Amino acid sequence: MLTEGVDFRLGEVSLARIGRKSLAVNLSDLAAMAARPVAAVVALALPHDGALDLARQLYEGMLPLAEEFDLAIAGGDTNCWDGPLVISVTVLGVPTDRGVLTRSGAQGGDAILVTGSLGGSILGRHFDFQPRVAESLRLQERFTLHAGIDCSDGLAKDLSHVCEASGVGAEVWQAEIPISPDAYLLAEQDPQGDSALHHALSDGEDFELILAVPEEEAKRILMEQPLGVPITRIGRFLAGDGMWQVAADGSRSPLAALGFEHGRDS
Amino acid sequence: MLTEGVDFRLGEVSLARIGRKSLAVNLSDLAAMAARPVAAVVALALPHDGALDLARQLYEGMLPLAEEFDLAIAGGDTNCWDGPLVISVTVLGVPTDRGVLTRSGAQGGDAILVTGSLGGSILGRHFDFQPRVAESLRLQERFTLHAGIDCSDGLAKDLSHVCEASGVGAEVWQAEIPISPDAYLLAEQDPQGDSALHHALSDGEDFELILAVPEEEAKRILMEQPLGVPITRIGRFLAGDGMWQVAADGSRSPLAALGFEHGRDS
Repeated sequence: MLTEGVDFRLGEVSLARIGRKSLAVNLSDLAAMAARPVAAVVALALPHDGALDLARQLYEGMLPLAEEFDLAIAGGDTNCWDGPLVISVTVLGVPTDRGVLTRSGAQGGDAILVTGSLGGSILGRHFDFQPRVAESLRLQERFTLHAGIDCSDGLAKDLSHVCEASGVGAEVWQAEIPISPDAYLLAEQDPQGDSALHHALSDGEDFELILAVPEEEAKRILMEQPLGVPITRIGRFLAGDGMWQVAADGSRSPLAALGFEHGRDS
Repeated sequence: MLTEGVDFRLGEVSLARIGRKSLAVNLSDLAAMAARPVAAVVALALPHDGALDLARQLYEGMLPLAEEFDLAIAGGDTNCWDGPLVISVTVLGVPTDRGVLTRSGAQGGDAILVTGSLGGSILGRHFDFQPRVAESLRLQERFTLHAGIDCSDGLAKDLSHVCEASGVGAEVWQAEIPISPDAYLLAEQDPQGDSALHHALSDGEDFELILAVPEEEAKRILMEQPLGVPITRIGRFLAGDGMWQVAADGSRSPLAALGFEHGRDS
């Protein structure tokens, strides 16, 4: 569910991009589970003023993405009211023959792999990202994956979700994290002086995949690079608790589960 | 999707009843198609003030209904914002072996059957109605049904939806319509002086079934009365266009598709 004032501000971004994102975040959830998209239902609460035009522009952003992912927009519910714009999308998918990918299968010793690059999505990528559905399905089809999640709350936070669900810890190698150019740009502009690395670890809405993959399988994936987007190893899961980060000089410190906290404003 | 100020006003009705209704209207949609409920996803936009308590009370209304219909609340999305309360529920169902019931199968000569009684739901029944899922499944299993819809926009309006989708007309026998006691109560209170019959024909949110059933099959249903709730014949579908009402004295007049117009305020 995307809500005006929280997820977007009208006037700052086109309705087509908002519509696209409302579908894309759901597709990213399917990617996280390696499920094939089937159908979507779209519920809208539209401000009375210009409601029809609002709806049309939202769908202009949704329809090309639905077509790209062979997704039927199968129904929903369109309402008008005196409140701000609300868009609630539900996407239905089916697992492949290999079953769904979950957060709970990571094992100590598994490699941590990520697609793409991380941080600074607020500069625009959080609207225009590519849901990693095809990438996830390809990996699930060809390789053994133990666990997966899409990076929506931030790398450290989402990694902590996998650790909690799997009952393992994790160690992240700072120098290996694929930092997005946007994260560098944001670090330069940032009055608080947060580093690009900090943004890569804690910014939300990258919508890249974070995967737990057995060591030998990870080597094959990294050598083959079977996706259109780079896939990078950034650390390993550990037997036991705790998250750690290892700096380029080998020094080791705790890694806090920074990132977006559901149910809070930050 | 139910929205504060349109579908309910906080303070006038308990959150549990609002929560129940948000699920019940979806179950009624499954009933209209004779589909078995499987799972629901619930997306909430909660006002910041007392959000957790709001959510808890909404679920207190939803959970007993979910349990009654063997429905898993399988996920969703819970958000806080500065706006009014929004509840968006999607329910998933599966067809029986006999396929789904649609609006488009009514044939000239079919009997029009309705469950329960109609009109005046605004007095409270529009929150506390029983979705006719079990009734629909039982009828679909034991009898040949041509078309169905749930009465959410009003009898005349929903009948017109079936007529349009099926390419038929309809004739409604005024004296046979099962008028709800609420409709009589409302007619007494109504400053506009609308009759109880008018309320039964045009009030929305009865959430009863309207069915198109072949003549002989309808006779069997009416004789057996196989449901816990009465089922009544109120007219017949006609080859060709147009909707008509026949008064007790046999006089015939056009029946306007009165009722709730989606996308309007009325």
